[in-house]
Amino acid sequence: MGRPRTPLLDRGRITTAALELVDAQGEFSVPQIARKLGVQTASVYHHVDGRDGIVELVRERVCAAIDSSTLGREPWDAALTAWARSYRAAFAAHPRAIPLLTTSPVRAPKVLLQYEQAVALLLDAGFALPDVMPVIIGLENLVLGSALDMAAPEAMWELTDEAETPQLARALAAADLRTEAAFELALTGYVAQLRRLLAGAPGPAA
Amino acid sequence: MGRPRTPLLDRGRITTAALELVDAQGEFSVPQIARKLGVQTASVYHHVDGRDGIVELVRERVCAAIDSSTLGREPWDAALTAWARSYRAAFAAHPRAIPLLTTSPVRAPKVLLQYEQAVALLLDAGFALPDVMPVIIGLENLVLGSALDMAAPEAMWELTDEAETPQLARALAAADLRTEAAFELALTGYVAQLRRLLAGAPGPAA
Repeated sequence: MGRPRTPLLDRGRITTAALELVDAQGEFSVPQIARKLGVQTASVYHHVDGRDGIVELVRERVCAAIDSSTLGREPWDAALTAWARSYRAAFAAHPRAIPLLTTSPVRAPKVLLQYEQAVALLLDAGFALPDVMPVIIGLENLVLGSALDMAAPEAMWELTDEAETPQLARALAAADLRTEAAFELALTGYVAQLRRLLAGAPGPAA
Repeated sequence: MGRPRTPLLDRGRITTAALELVDAQGEFSVPQIARKLGVQTASVYHHVDGRDGIVELVRERVCAAIDSSTLGREPWDAALTAWARSYRAAFAAHPRAIPLLTTSPVRAPKVLLQYEQAVALLLDAGFALPDVMPVIIGLENLVLGSALDMAAPEAMWELTDEAETPQLARALAAADLRTEAAFELALTGYVAQLRRLLAGAPGPAA
C-alpha cells in the first residue's frame, strides 16, 4: 500500500474550509473540515487551539475585510459612520457567520485591537467612559441586524388571500426595498443620537 | 406484536417540537421532528404545508408573543417604541430562530396582519408611502440585531496578552454591559430620526 497523500495543512486552509461550511450551513464541525481537506480530524486539531480557535480564525478572516483605517478619520462621527458601513459590508458577505460569531467571545487579537481603536476614537471624542461600550454595542446591533437582513429573500413578504393586507401591499409596491435605505436611516439616526449624548442631552430631541 | 403507540399529532405539537429544535441547534429537519414526537416523517407532512409551512408555524408562534396592541397607541412614536420593545423581547426568547426566520419569506397570515397594522400606523402618522417599508425594515434590523445580541456570552471580550488593549479594558470595566442601554440608545436615535423624516428633513441634525 502506498503512503496516503497528505495535503499541506495550515491555519489558512482550515479557516477557508470552516468559513465555506459556515456560509453553506451556518455551522461547522472539525470532522467536516477534516473531510473537506482530506485529512484526519486529529491533524486539524494539531494546527489550531480547538474548535473555539477555529471560530476565532473565522472571525479574524471575516473582520479582515473591515477597513479599520476609517477609525482614524476625523471628525469622530464621520469615522464611526465609515467604520459602520465597512463593518456591515464585511459581514454582509458572510451573513450566516453572524449567529456563530455573536454567540462566542471575541478572543482574536487583531479583532480586539480593532475594538481598542474604536474605544480610543470615542474617548478622544469626549464620550464618558461608561458610555463607550454601549455606544459600540448599539452600533454593532444595527450593523449586524442589517447585514443579516441582506441574506433575506428578495420578496420577503408573500401576501395571501388568508390575510387582508391592502396597505401593506401598497407600501411594498411603492418602497425601495434595497436594505441600504433602511440602514442609512438607522445609522444617521444613531450618529445624531450620539451627538446629543456627547452634548450631555441623552434624551430624544422633542 | 402490538400496534405501535400513535400519539395525537397536531400542528401545535409539531410547532413546539420544531421550535425546541431551533432553540437547541438553530435549525430543524422534518425527520428530527418526527423522531421527537415518536411518529413517522410522513405523518408530520400530513399536517403541515411542507417544511416551509413549519417555518411559518414557528414564526407565528414566536410573533404571538409580540404585543401588537402597542401599535394602536398614540402618538405614533410612542406606539412604535412600545412595539419595538415587545418585538425585541419576543425574539430575545428565541435568538436562534432569528437567522431561520429572516432568511425565509413571511407568509403566516397573522404575522402579515401585524405588518398591515404597522403600515397603517405609519401612513396615518403622515409618512410618505415609499418611506413606510424602509422605516419598518430599519426598525427590525435594530430590534433583531439587539435580540441576537442577547444570546451573546456574558463576557463577550476576552482580553489577551497577545493584543495590547488598555483602553478597551478600561471601557469594559466601566460599562454597563446589559444590552438594554445599547438598544434604548439606538431606538431613541431611530425614532428621533423618524420625526425628522416626517418633518421633511431626512438628513442628520447638524
